[in-house]
Amino acid sequence: MGEYRLLSTIKTPDDVKKLKEEQLPQLCTEIREKLVEVVSVNGGHLSPNLGVVELTVALHRCFDLPKDSLVWDVGHQSYTHKLLTGRYDQFETLRLKDGISGFPKTEESVYDDFNTGHSSTSISAAFGIANAKLLSGDNSHTIAVIGDGSFTGGLAFEAVNNAGRFNKNFIVILNDNKMSISKNVGAFPRYLTTVRIQPWYIRVKRGTQKLLSKLPGVGRVTQAILRRSKSRIKNLVYKNTLFDDFGFTYFGPIDGHNLEELENVFSVAKKENKPVLIHVVTKKGKGYQPAEDNPGEFHGIGKFDIDSGEPISSHKGFSAVFGKLLCDLAKDDDKLCAITAAMTGGTGLKEFSKRYKNRFFDVGIAEEHAVTFGCGLASRGYRPVFAVYSTFLQRAYDQLIHDAALGKNHLVLGIDRAGIVGSDGETHQGVFDVSMLNSIPKTTVYSPTYFEGLERSLKTALYLDEGLAAVRYPRGGELYRPEDFNEESENFNLYGDKTCGRLLVTYGRLFSYAVRAKEELAKEGVEVCILKLCRIRPIDPEAIEIAQSFRQVWFFEEGILNGGIARTFSDMLTLRGYTGCYHIRAIADRFVRQMTVSEALHMLRLDTEGMVNIVKKELHT
Amino acid sequence: MGEYRLLSTIKTPDDVKKLKEEQLPQLCTEIREKLVEVVSVNGGHLSPNLGVVELTVALHRCFDLPKDSLVWDVGHQSYTHKLLTGRYDQFETLRLKDGISGFPKTEESVYDDFNTGHSSTSISAAFGIANAKLLSGDNSHTIAVIGDGSFTGGLAFEAVNNAGRFNKNFIVILNDNKMSISKNVGAFPRYLTTVRIQPWYIRVKRGTQKLLSKLPGVGRVTQAILRRSKSRIKNLVYKNTLFDDFGFTYFGPIDGHNLEELENVFSVAKKENKPVLIHVVTKKGKGYQPAEDNPGEFHGIGKFDIDSGEPISSHKGFSAVFGKLLCDLAKDDDKLCAITAAMTGGTGLKEFSKRYKNRFFDVGIAEEHAVTFGCGLASRGYRPVFAVYSTFLQRAYDQLIHDAALGKNHLVLGIDRAGIVGSDGETHQGVFDVSMLNSIPKTTVYSPTYFEGLERSLKTALYLDEGLAAVRYPRGGELYRPEDFNEESENFNLYGDKTCGRLLVTYGRLFSYAVRAKEELAKEGVEVCILKLCRIRPIDPEAIEIAQSFRQVWFFEEGILNGGIARTFSDMLTLRGYTGCYHIRAIADRFVRQMTVSEALHMLRLDTEGMVNIVKKELHT
Repeated sequence: MGEYRLLSTIKTPDDVKKLKEEQLPQLCTEIREKLVEVVSVNGGHLSPNLGVVELTVALHRCFDLPKDSLVWDVGHQSYTHKLLTGRYDQFETLRLKDGISGFPKTEESVYDDFNTGHSSTSISAAFGIANAKLLSGDNSHTIAVIGDGSFTGGLAFEAVNNAGRFNKNFIVILNDNKMSISKNVGAFPRYLTTVRIQPWYIRVKRGTQKLLSKLPGVGRVTQAILRRSKSRIKNLVYKNTLFDDFGFTYFGPIDGHNLEELENVFSVAKKENKPVLIHVVTKKGKGYQPAEDNPGEFHGIGKFDIDSGEPISSHKGFSAVFGKLLCDLAKDDDKLCAITAAMTGGTGLKEFSKRYKNRFFDVGIAEEHAVTFGCGLASRGYRPVFAVYSTFLQRAYDQLIHDAALGKNHLVLGIDRAGIVGSDGETHQGVFDVSMLNSIPKTTVYSPTYFEGLERSLKTALYLDEGLAAVRYPRGGELYRPEDFNEESENFNLYGDKTCGRLLVTYGRLFSYAVRAKEELAKEGVEVCILKLCRIRPIDPEAIEIAQSFRQVWFFEEGILNGGIARTFSDMLTLRGYTGCYHIRAIADRFVRQMTVSEALHMLRLDTEGMVNIVKKELHT
Repeated sequence: MGEYRLLSTIKTPDDVKKLKEEQLPQLCTEIREKLVEVVSVNGGHLSPNLGVVELTVALHRCFDLPKDSLVWDVGHQSYTHKLLTGRYDQFETLRLKDGISGFPKTEESVYDDFNTGHSSTSISAAFGIANAKLLSGDNSHTIAVIGDGSFTGGLAFEAVNNAGRFNKNFIVILNDNKMSISKNVGAFPRYLTTVRIQPWYIRVKRGTQKLLSKLPGVGRVTQAILRRSKSRIKNLVYKNTLFDDFGFTYFGPIDGHNLEELENVFSVAKKENKPVLIHVVTKKGKGYQPAEDNPGEFHGIGKFDIDSGEPISSHKGFSAVFGKLLCDLAKDDDKLCAITAAMTGGTGLKEFSKRYKNRFFDVGIAEEHAVTFGCGLASRGYRPVFAVYSTFLQRAYDQLIHDAALGKNHLVLGIDRAGIVGSDGETHQGVFDVSMLNSIPKTTVYSPTYFEGLERSLKTALYLDEGLAAVRYPRGGELYRPEDFNEESENFNLYGDKTCGRLLVTYGRLFSYAVRAKEELAKEGVEVCILKLCRIRPIDPEAIEIAQSFRQVWFFEEGILNGGIARTFSDMLTLRGYTGCYHIRAIADRFVRQMTVSEALHMLRLDTEGMVNIVKKELHT
């Protein structure tokens, strides 16, 4: 890999400012090499970062960070920003335990102004910061950088509605990569296309550039003035954009890989007396051919081979099995529909989206809408399945209560990335969905351990259950399955000697760890039995009855303690007059930071070693 | 009151269609009289309903209900629709126990196509229905009616983004009453103002109308064609609206109290080959002077005197005390800010909004944004308080986790209408906020019983707690307080004889019922003690220690069982090796329908009688 001669010298934005213009292409090249080098080893978000290299460099040159504030929407595109703000030396630790985060973290650097991770929050947060500055007489700028995909989330529009016609010093940069994560299909992205391709504008732009390039004496200020009047003329000649309608001054579209254009527009925007929206067009994956060719694949990726762009390991995971299952079911069931909130690939729906185009709905990064829209479909006899990551489902809590459960609309959730997710860290852990769904009346939830259980419970959810029903499964694939484990049941399985007096209760992938723990304990002469729940809400009363006969019960739960299943189980046992000993191990009052899934489960004492130690410590003899 | 000669004969939309045009004003007058008559007795949403009388009549005349589908956003404006669809005779039972609902209910009528209650869901739901129709070859229309206020909710924009450039037969009616609940302050409502007042358009419209009115032979179709070309010309001459930008065909603005105009535009819209947005301008409270003068006061109202418009009873409630408290605190604390999501009046912030204009933020019906925006303010050292109804806070679950708790931003929530709310019914019950907040790590929650506790806990939340902190209080005012009850403590109070062996644990207003139960039980020789929690998360370990010394513990909780405080309390007791008897009475796996708060608490066995009976039944002697 490269020597990073320039990049390695950059410690603060001041160092970026000191570079000569002719050095900048070299800096950008080095940044891209570093991004590819580290992400190919650690995994991470590659194409979004490759797309904003010039944009980030220009921001660092034109604004006065950290006095000016910069909020990155989602934050998965902040790697260049990290490289330029003193974190080059630690960049190899990206997304590793105790390493630097793949998202902005205020604890990590004064240059990270606001923590992000989920989509569409940046304008709201930046607008809050801008108002705080206004109240305290601080004249510095506040900038939100948000992708076209994130703009399809309702929160972004709520913020635009609130921020329009605000005071000055507030800048929204719309990073339009024409694509977001999946391919954008909504009206807003299509609208951006129409804005992007206004022929008159391109003509004017080219003319101006040619003119400027031929006049050696024309400085940046003059250029800026010209550009500004151009924008004004544009609005007069053609029409307002919808951003103008919302009270923003619109500048764009700007070539997001042209540093000069970017620096010019920023210098103009800084002087505006209204909130500004700068529409920047970038290419996702820019500069690394495999990512340019497949920006979706390289959006978030594991280890890969730099030369070929091929992922280094890939095994059949729950998402793929889920996607195939849905396709198989849709063949014979023309009422079956699939919904995704901009996660066609991630949730395994690619094949479905091609084969059942009419019944496939990518609604944008819009989980609230996905749920209510699905309820509309369901209210007319269709069977919608909303495939969604656990952590993003949090955005639809109200709609799940109000439109699905209360409205008795039969919506099925395929909850992917349930449980600990690993390197994406605390913003992305799928540890809240169970508490959330557990609080919603009349809801059914399955948490299978193996593909077999996924299939069985998905079918039950679709064809036997009513109202809101969910099947949740972890990131990745199946873990250890003992040879003598029978067919995975819909409600629960009992594994081991019923009469040994000690019962481990768990669900989902923790069962594999529990089986290992059972084996370990057996070596030390401690016999335990395991109750594996699959339907975790409502719990089958028969499972409680079985548990009752054990002197000691340990419940291991890969989710938040409050509102979780372990407590419901405890309550049901108590109601039946259980007098034995009941222990819970779940995720208590804490967030779980970035580290591998194994590391996290180990830390939480939810892996084999943790279970063994807990049982041994609390063992009644 | 009136005789309702016409209205009483209407059983179905067909009956409305059969009326002659000249009878319609009389029908509208009778509807308004009926609305005022019933709402003045039962309470309810008055001004929204008065505003859409003509709109509803026109919809019933032009569309083929229930073949065509009609989704009312929020649904609090569906009273006229109910009066015209066979529910005139039961209209006196509006919002009463077992009576007709103040919102659309599919169980109530085939003319209610989708249940609503919360804001901004209608376009999503209607779009789901429209897609189901498309898939099944059903050519009927689907119509969403949504107010300008609801349009500021992000969900509405997610839906517009998804629905733009859809097939035909999908119509969104934007009911622009220039006001929504509080006064709209966002950019979108201001944008509507600019659309509304285009002078050229009004000129053209008046001209056309005059022309048409002078030509007796001009039928509806010709009028429609003229109107359509007018809209086309408008778009050519002036500019697209943002709805056009999103792929809708825009018609408007239409006078929402002019039946002829409404019927014309509907007949044109039905023939469009694209989704249509019809911009209708109405006057909130139309036809009842007190409501026209004070549409906000009459948005949702209790009993009132018809002649004067004066509310019949009004006593000092928690909202008012909260609002006054905030004002008092803001006097000495220039970092204190208040945020509302379009509920300035309802949350008691009117005075604050006037006195501290700079530090008051009405962000529209946008709870997600309110939270993240508040976190932005907090991240720069301000102290934002977001005052919000419990049920609407559900929309911000993800932002509470992601931006407040995880981001360690000190956001204080003033949660109004916590617990059972009464006649608004199941969509509005404030019974989920505790489970929701209980699942979020590092969160503090107070649930005081008296104004004194509200003040104390609000101050603690503001000045001593960190991160996400909430104070929740019920609709209405203080209930019974025994004379010998000492000062309400921040964490918990013990009331009664510590040594009696029987403990009732509860929080919030249920304490008043528990005290009454204690008194009743004493009459029968059963002595109980009461532990009143105020800080319910985290629970003070000392409270657990005290509870431990009682042989029997009953926890009464006015909230959902799963994820609630009763279970946390139980768990903490168990961990300390409690061996006594623990009973929980909370809201189990169910929704609570409309009835008065007393009726609901009675049904849930959470009132005095319920508590007494439960204790007596489970009493160990």
